[in-house]
Amino acid sequence: MTIYPVKGIRLATAAAGIRYTDRDDLVVIECQAGSSCATVFTQNKFSAAPVQLAKEHITQSMPRALLVNSGNANAGTGEKGMKNTVQCCELLAGALGCDASEVLPYSTGVIGEQIPVQAFAAAIPDCVKSLSAEADAWVRAAKAILTTDTVPKLLSRKLDIAGCEVNITGMAKGAGMIRPDMATMLAFIATDAVIEQAVLQKLLNKATGISFNRITVDGDTSTNDACTLLASGAVDMQPIKADSAEFAQFSTALTELMQGLAQAIIRDAEGATKFITINVSGAESENDCLAVAYTVAESPLVKTALFASDPNWGRILAAVGRAAVSSLDISQVNIMLNGVAIVTAGEPDPSYTEDAGLQAVADIEITIDIKLGSTAESVTVWTSDLSHEYIRINAEYRT
Amino acid sequence: MTIYPVKGIRLATAAAGIRYTDRDDLVVIECQAGSSCATVFTQNKFSAAPVQLAKEHITQSMPRALLVNSGNANAGTGEKGMKNTVQCCELLAGALGCDASEVLPYSTGVIGEQIPVQAFAAAIPDCVKSLSAEADAWVRAAKAILTTDTVPKLLSRKLDIAGCEVNITGMAKGAGMIRPDMATMLAFIATDAVIEQAVLQKLLNKATGISFNRITVDGDTSTNDACTLLASGAVDMQPIKADSAEFAQFSTALTELMQGLAQAIIRDAEGATKFITINVSGAESENDCLAVAYTVAESPLVKTALFASDPNWGRILAAVGRAAVSSLDISQVNIMLNGVAIVTAGEPDPSYTEDAGLQAVADIEITIDIKLGSTAESVTVWTSDLSHEYIRINAEYRT
Repeated sequence: MTIYPVKGIRLATAAAGIRYTDRDDLVVIECQAGSSCATVFTQNKFSAAPVQLAKEHITQSMPRALLVNSGNANAGTGEKGMKNTVQCCELLAGALGCDASEVLPYSTGVIGEQIPVQAFAAAIPDCVKSLSAEADAWVRAAKAILTTDTVPKLLSRKLDIAGCEVNITGMAKGAGMIRPDMATMLAFIATDAVIEQAVLQKLLNKATGISFNRITVDGDTSTNDACTLLASGAVDMQPIKADSAEFAQFSTALTELMQGLAQAIIRDAEGATKFITINVSGAESENDCLAVAYTVAESPLVKTALFASDPNWGRILAAVGRAAVSSLDISQVNIMLNGVAIVTAGEPDPSYTEDAGLQAVADIEITIDIKLGSTAESVTVWTSDLSHEYIRINAEYRT
Repeated sequence: MTIYPVKGIRLATAAAGIRYTDRDDLVVIECQAGSSCATVFTQNKFSAAPVQLAKEHITQSMPRALLVNSGNANAGTGEKGMKNTVQCCELLAGALGCDASEVLPYSTGVIGEQIPVQAFAAAIPDCVKSLSAEADAWVRAAKAILTTDTVPKLLSRKLDIAGCEVNITGMAKGAGMIRPDMATMLAFIATDAVIEQAVLQKLLNKATGISFNRITVDGDTSTNDACTLLASGAVDMQPIKADSAEFAQFSTALTELMQGLAQAIIRDAEGATKFITINVSGAESENDCLAVAYTVAESPLVKTALFASDPNWGRILAAVGRAAVSSLDISQVNIMLNGVAIVTAGEPDPSYTEDAGLQAVADIEITIDIKLGSTAESVTVWTSDLSHEYIRINAEYRT
């Protein structure tokens, strides 16, 4: 697909040798003066040093640059890890001529090892010389942030907002340790629209809530999750105001782009052979819908059955039944598997046949529709199956 | 180990051909008139027909017999499943000359298929003729209730209570879909002590809470979980009164026996190569300790790392950090892995070396000690690792 450059945003990558020896693992994303920035970070209490520092920096000023590395998460690294992060921000600030507090740091990779500051020091000066606004720079950056991912996740949209051409381009990485709780491992989205910080944050929160916060691979929330949205304001236009028609238009496009990135993470989930959409509706609250959706999405037994293309719907039923929803009335429960009714009004659907079930789960794309009652509440969660390959990847990750 | 017969309790098994063709799959446990019975059942809202019927029967009278089958869970089977269960209870009641409400039914195996009542009808008459109080009958029954288990779980204790010899013998089955929420898949424990129902229930609740309710293989709570404790009263002794010295003595023995059975389930967990004990202490409440313990115990990333004997302690730290405990103060957190300090006061322990970590996780028995603060609260949860074999077993279960 076409990747649109974002005016006012430049990117550069480098092979710093942080962990990998044969690929880029360092990314600098620079935004022009006056850009606004919205962020969401992991709710994991053992958040990584870069997450802690980025949260501090964003309260001091809008950033001029993001510094991203793959291969090392700089999490669980204590005071030394924090000192190293500060130093890396200072190195980039020095090269760009800005303040260290105007650099937001991001790391992803192995937890519990110190980052090699010397590798950053060696790579940053040349890296910033290659900063480019071209689409190719986005493509290189989307590759450089990957760890166990097998494909880059990069999407782009062009909008006409009140006669002005606006671009939104974003990338994400993540394949395992995915149960984002504010944002996925790492996502960087930029637009050249004019949007002030408070409005930008509102747009990001809304889109995150129904994109990155609706996916799970293994239920494990990372220490490094971060999603950042930059608005360079390089387009000559009126600022997008909260709750205006332009806001709605931008919000829809941003949400679709972020849902596309979130789904790309699930399609690339560690060992995944199926892409599973779980729609849950009709519970007393959105939280009840979510409790059922995530219980099914994270059930190892449901996931291994789908991996085996086995329509073992009893496991879906058992997962619904154990979800933490006090008001569940099983006589109201309807479940469909790729359009095949398996449970109707809490009873096995009389029309169900094993052949129909087998055909339903043979697909690579599986949709599970669970209706719990008659309210208007509904949620969608995306997940993957659980395969031998997931075990292999995660048993061998550090070797 | 020695299995002690329990006076007043007789058992028989049969190869009814419910699913398997070459082994016993039906068990009858008969208790003498005047026996008392305590039960705990799954909290899964899609509970199986036998669970629903057993819960109803136990409110009507104390049972004279338990009817157990493996190979078919009779769960998710709707009205027909319930009718079939009623019929099976009537068949056994007819053969024993008791009322159908004096039979408690139990099923374990595949969810969503109807049980073959004809197979029960054919097997029950001969089965009851072979009822025996001998230890061998317990051994045969412990084998007949198994599904994906590879070994029977059967334990026995002999006590001297106020000069009277009392026996407790119990069996359990379960290897996957294990996150009991009142009891594990199936457990049957009997004693010949004299204990009235209310006291017996109190003893069972207490022991279940810190045995079967403290294990997890995959977080999936079964639709058929049930644990039943029979007291035949065949010993000539004073009844054991609530909260007496005899109560304490019996409670300790029962708890140890049930913990032994619960641990046996984890040692036989599907695909398990490690036996993992997770001790969590010092949180504000027992529930907070449990939230952390289960988050670590059910983290696919922690489980695959331990399967690989990889001291990837960052994953333990990440799991602790994402547990649903609002008051967690990471500066108070200490984590040890088989006695090796990995996190001290929330920071990587300075004495930790990768060699020490490798040695710690090389063992088959792994203990993870997590101290969250300085309160007296503490819990222990037992779990297994996550291996290729778990995926194979659960991808191929119905084929």
